Amino acid sequence: MVNIRDIAKKANVSITTVSRVINGHPYVKEDKRERVLAIMEEIGYQINMNAVHLSKGITKRIGVIIPFVSHPYFSQLLSGIYKGAFINKHHLLVMQTNYDNCVEVECLNMLKNREVDGIIIVSCELDQEIIADYKPFGPIVFCGEFVENFRCITIDHAAAFQLGLEELFYNGHTKIGYTLGRKNSHNSHVRALTYKNFMEIRTLPYDSKWIFDGAYTMEDGERIYHMWNKLRDKPTGLLVTNDQVAAGFLLAANKERNNLQSFVQIIGFDNQYISQLLSFSTIELPLTQMGETSFHLLFQEIKHVKLGHSLIKR
Amino acid sequence: MVNIRDIAKKANVSITTVSRVINGHPYVKEDKRERVLAIMEEIGYQINMNAVHLSKGITKRIGVIIPFVSHPYFSQLLSGIYKGAFINKHHLLVMQTNYDNCVEVECLNMLKNREVDGIIIVSCELDQEIIADYKPFGPIVFCGEFVENFRCITIDHAAAFQLGLEELFYNGHTKIGYTLGRKNSHNSHVRALTYKNFMEIRTLPYDSKWIFDGAYTMEDGERIYHMWNKLRDKPTGLLVTNDQVAAGFLLAANKERNNLQSFVQIIGFDNQYISQLLSFSTIELPLTQMGETSFHLLFQEIKHVKLGHSLIKR
Repeated sequence: MVNIRDIAKKANVSITTVSRVINGHPYVKEDKRERVLAIMEEIGYQINMNAVHLSKGITKRIGVIIPFVSHPYFSQLLSGIYKGAFINKHHLLVMQTNYDNCVEVECLNMLKNREVDGIIIVSCELDQEIIADYKPFGPIVFCGEFVENFRCITIDHAAAFQLGLEELFYNGHTKIGYTLGRKNSHNSHVRALTYKNFMEIRTLPYDSKWIFDGAYTMEDGERIYHMWNKLRDKPTGLLVTNDQVAAGFLLAANKERNNLQSFVQIIGFDNQYISQLLSFSTIELPLTQMGETSFHLLFQEIKHVKLGHSLIKR
Repeated sequence: MVNIRDIAKKANVSITTVSRVINGHPYVKEDKRERVLAIMEEIGYQINMNAVHLSKGITKRIGVIIPFVSHPYFSQLLSGIYKGAFINKHHLLVMQTNYDNCVEVECLNMLKNREVDGIIIVSCELDQEIIADYKPFGPIVFCGEFVENFRCITIDHAAAFQLGLEELFYNGHTKIGYTLGRKNSHNSHVRALTYKNFMEIRTLPYDSKWIFDGAYTMEDGERIYHMWNKLRDKPTGLLVTNDQVAAGFLLAANKERNNLQSFVQIIGFDNQYISQLLSFSTIELPLTQMGETSFHLLFQEIKHVKLGHSLIKR
């Protein structure tokens, strides 16, 4: 898409001047106006973009299916997607779905209806089978989850989770629990399997009470702390969904003046700034890079990109 | 916009079936397919939305100008805007601008180019004068800042700020400082003026060193704590831009085992969950409601809506 920065540069005038010429503002010198109009004609600057999109068959818009925009994990991914869109001069039609199937399908229909040229799915509830129906209409990329037969960018969730378990075990913990988001997501299944294998190979005890679901926010972390605190037989090592939940757990304990450090170790995910301030270990996931790369994948035939992760010990 | 939920309901079939009929999927029973197609024709379900938009002159899309999507203040506003869009069956074209003038103008041009029907400005750098040039092309609403001659939804920043100053003074603080975001924003000017008046009326001392700018994130809070800690003559009351910055300040102090509570009081803004966990006072701003109302304002002639705020004492 030609933008007014390009026109301003070519005509050697300010962006304000170009904007004013476009809008028929009276306070523009005649020679400048003529220069801008000439450039606009030369490079074909169009007014009604719906007409342009209809004739060209492309919109330079990409749809994004995302459950929540105000959660740090998702908003950091989104920030990366914006970076990719900016570099590629595209706009984003971001659909906040709250995991509502109907909204998800509506977004996919925008691909079919030519409102967008492609779709990035950050997370969704829809069956893969339904999504596959939309493949003929444009590129669809999964950002953060591995989905067979789709382009996707992921981290190795099993390996990252295993790394956390090993770290806890290495630090002397034999009673290890973990938290997860949605019970039935692909990632949750991967975690459950990794956990079970890990514990069984080392003949460690495990207990379904040591697994806490619905863990997304700081508030969830506080709730899980109280659940954990009521357990008779407590896990002493906890691998926690993300740093927000981990911080909620630790701050809730601090609030009760419960000095946890002697008998529980928390490891979070994401390496958010709060993990540094509260000095807990975390597994860093390259979220911004993941978002940005998902955008580039729209224009490439590569099926699967896997990014690395690393343990930040504190 | 007709959505497939409506079609599914009318035809008494599942959303999946409707989706498959639209996409020409073979595994749909003939009677169901016919029913769906009949309903689609009846309610005029269209395929190429660019053609629909071109013919109708509306897109059911709204543009949003927002500096950052991954900052809690902005993402909570955005969450409210999404709520409004969902209720009104509109989609959002959200432009993350990083306060780049060119991106801001690009978004305004989408209004002129009929890519969107209206614009919500959460925060921007552009001169009001330039924005006014776009008024003939559709509704423009400011969400969070008062701007003369535009529709806007605000809180009374001066009153909220004054309330914080009064609370600090009431708690015995005579040396009061504050933090702000961008030095030259409208809100910052309002705060500076409110502060100066407040201190002068009470003949309290004040010092430019007690005002800290560039305060947005937890990381900024940590930086400001260290600046504050190096001051010989420290303010003992601090009114802080938002709860993220306030939490960064307090956690940085805790990390150094600096037990601040005896000699400094922090008041934040936004009433985020972390303020509850760290037990500091905060001024609650109705951000989600503000976002949602900004959306409704697009379709109303009301010029200015002001929402309330309240002090949460802890």
